[in-house]
Amino acid sequence: MSIESAITELAPHFGDRLSQAESVREQHGHDEAHHRPRLPDAVIWPHSTEEVALVARTCNEHGCPIVPWGTGTSLEGHVIPVQGGISLDFTQMDKVLAVHSEDMDVVVQPGIQRIRLNEELRETGLFFPVDPGADASIGGMAATRASGTCAVRYGTMREAVLALEVVLADGRVIRTGSRARKSAAGYDLTKLFVGSEGTLGIITELTLRLHGVPEAVAAATCAFEAMEDAVNTVIETIQMGVPIARIELLDALSIKGFNGHAGYDMPELPTLFLEFQGSEAGVAEQSETVGVIAEEHRGRGFEWTTRPEERNRLWSARHNIFYAQQSLRPGAKGYVTDVCVPISRLAEAILETNEDLDASPLIAPLVGHVGDGNFHLALLIDPDDPAERSEAERVGARISERAIRLGGTVTGEHGVGLGKRKFMEAEHGEAWAVMGEIKRTLDPRGILNPGKIVPGN
Amino acid sequence: MSIESAITELAPHFGDRLSQAESVREQHGHDEAHHRPRLPDAVIWPHSTEEVALVARTCNEHGCPIVPWGTGTSLEGHVIPVQGGISLDFTQMDKVLAVHSEDMDVVVQPGIQRIRLNEELRETGLFFPVDPGADASIGGMAATRASGTCAVRYGTMREAVLALEVVLADGRVIRTGSRARKSAAGYDLTKLFVGSEGTLGIITELTLRLHGVPEAVAAATCAFEAMEDAVNTVIETIQMGVPIARIELLDALSIKGFNGHAGYDMPELPTLFLEFQGSEAGVAEQSETVGVIAEEHRGRGFEWTTRPEERNRLWSARHNIFYAQQSLRPGAKGYVTDVCVPISRLAEAILETNEDLDASPLIAPLVGHVGDGNFHLALLIDPDDPAERSEAERVGARISERAIRLGGTVTGEHGVGLGKRKFMEAEHGEAWAVMGEIKRTLDPRGILNPGKIVPGN
Repeated sequence: MSIESAITELAPHFGDRLSQAESVREQHGHDEAHHRPRLPDAVIWPHSTEEVALVARTCNEHGCPIVPWGTGTSLEGHVIPVQGGISLDFTQMDKVLAVHSEDMDVVVQPGIQRIRLNEELRETGLFFPVDPGADASIGGMAATRASGTCAVRYGTMREAVLALEVVLADGRVIRTGSRARKSAAGYDLTKLFVGSEGTLGIITELTLRLHGVPEAVAAATCAFEAMEDAVNTVIETIQMGVPIARIELLDALSIKGFNGHAGYDMPELPTLFLEFQGSEAGVAEQSETVGVIAEEHRGRGFEWTTRPEERNRLWSARHNIFYAQQSLRPGAKGYVTDVCVPISRLAEAILETNEDLDASPLIAPLVGHVGDGNFHLALLIDPDDPAERSEAERVGARISERAIRLGGTVTGEHGVGLGKRKFMEAEHGEAWAVMGEIKRTLDPRGILNPGKIVPGN
Repeated sequence: MSIESAITELAPHFGDRLSQAESVREQHGHDEAHHRPRLPDAVIWPHSTEEVALVARTCNEHGCPIVPWGTGTSLEGHVIPVQGGISLDFTQMDKVLAVHSEDMDVVVQPGIQRIRLNEELRETGLFFPVDPGADASIGGMAATRASGTCAVRYGTMREAVLALEVVLADGRVIRTGSRARKSAAGYDLTKLFVGSEGTLGIITELTLRLHGVPEAVAAATCAFEAMEDAVNTVIETIQMGVPIARIELLDALSIKGFNGHAGYDMPELPTLFLEFQGSEAGVAEQSETVGVIAEEHRGRGFEWTTRPEERNRLWSARHNIFYAQQSLRPGAKGYVTDVCVPISRLAEAILETNEDLDASPLIAPLVGHVGDGNFHLALLIDPDDPAERSEAERVGARISERAIRLGGTVTGEHGVGLGKRKFMEAEHGEAWAVMGEIKRTLDPRGILNPGKIVPGN
């Protein structure tokens, strides 16, 4: 069989860095969401671009699927090898290769995780701002075009990645982009590979844009009696052009999970988590402006989190919200939605979603990167109960279809993976077919993470 | 012949909006640079996406080249129909289709020019920040991934374009992206078409990101005795993270042209043109910070341009620098270079370039969007003198090769067109071949602006 022959050919090159042990394969057969697991036939831990190219060349010859693996924290089944094959685990390619402080960029291998990257940057006065909930790998974050709580200020992986090294399906190694801040030199291949979820090529090196650690930082929470007031506070803040660093919304149910999981005691009300960054004067100006807006919308006033340790505790708890939400129903899995709409439609999108949920038996806490118009519901289901699964699918589909109708997207940051592919035609129309044409050009044998993003395979 | 049969088939559909008159064809046979003209066989002025699709379908059947046309202000020969065919002139598709003030975006047709777009936005409190020297069309700016003086703060067309409608070579119409601020829904086709110079598809509609008109604006100039001091002032300003809106460098020769062309009387020294935007307090803080940096580098102090009319006059004159430079040698054409390097290499790139110029008989004023690491030389040549042409090519090649060696790009904002294609292999290596593969997939008959960007055709 083609997969077996690829593994047989690769085995002598990798020694104990190729494993077919059941436990190892099980580890690489699922991500953190509700999707049905499927095991790879083997797992390989490469150490170099050359080794990745060898795997690609060999697998391409034998028609053996390759699924790149970072930390397995994706939420749409991206890393599940639905057609078997090789899971290419990048945890041993996790180095910082070069820090260019003067140019505010860094060159890394794909396996490095975001928290360690920032630890390694600590002495430089620079930081990397993209912060999905999980401590994901940078390669995986680029592959899924991840964002997080700071995207409203600093952008997503789309803005953060300046250049890439990519191994193509046939083993060719290309470099895209450069360390220059802008370029008009041909097609933007960097942006094509960012968000391609391992279906167009395998990322083996990334050059990332960094930002200066701000002189002053201030964080606060602000509770509202009504969801609509919280949302309108966000909309006005964005429309005023306040360069807010973070503006996150948690509904009452999420706050309940947050309190229980992280040991807080906040009122169980829709609550904004805010962070202001800049000079001392800039932070004072921003927080005053937003304070006035919140007051006009009956916000209960800012609860300041002034000391750095308190702030870190708050945001670290916020990053664990997915686990906090799941704790609301022990044993449940979160079926997570991820829509993003133009900000003028955000209130409508959230309020209509709440009506859907009122009419559903499911518990579904909400959390949102609302400054971008992006919010998530975690529909808490027993993944083994087909009725709950299908109810989650029904509600999820309504939310996704609404986002498309409101001029938005079914996925703001989690990616397509297995879960969102069914909406691609509705969202993209004929452009989805064009994505398929590009895929077949770069991966004619369909070995790169088959079954994801594009039509067919 | 294939071109003739396409024109014959299209003629009845377009009436007097299809012209084969010599004078019209001559107008569409060149851009503003030194490249050798070549006339299209016909010019068509479409009024709708459907008409563009008809042209594409027909030309694809007959193998007739199509070159989209905005204002003809490109600088690398992009609009020259090197294989003849049809020049598709978008000047009659120039409407603002929708302004979404709450979402800070606008939907436009490709033919609208940047100055009129901003005039139409005046009442909204919003503006579109991308400002190349020419009053270019928005479609052309997207096609060449243009930028300008504000890119250091607001980004380039790469950041400005949220969504597109594109007619493909075979006449299919696709929509890419959405009005949501971020998305992880598949391949970023928007970014693939931005910068593709009409070689992958024909842009028929654009959704653009807008920004709020700042509360306070302050502009200044600052002269330096030595180029290196000016450049180091820029580098430190960027590294300090000052959110400066504009920071432009003109060398002594450019100032001379500027003075003569625009009626100023500035000292003929390397000079920075700066603009600060934000709140009153923010502008004061930024200008104080940059003032201290400039002083440390022996800047002569800020000459403030405080009244809006004075500011507009200054920036409008700055936008005409290409013409001002050409006035230094009446009858000459500017052979313009466009390299962009990591900012840490900017001083090196400029100083070594000056050594090249000292050793050359050519006059070549310098101007730069130096906050991005991007600068231009206008090598002023008599385009009919083969010796001067080849000297310009020699010096231009040295500058381009140096940029690649320093980790940069041969074109920061003008695009590839005819002039920079010869450097694509050196800059991109195997990735250039990948661009060609994508081109052949989307345009298998090679009718879309043939002879540009990719290998072959």
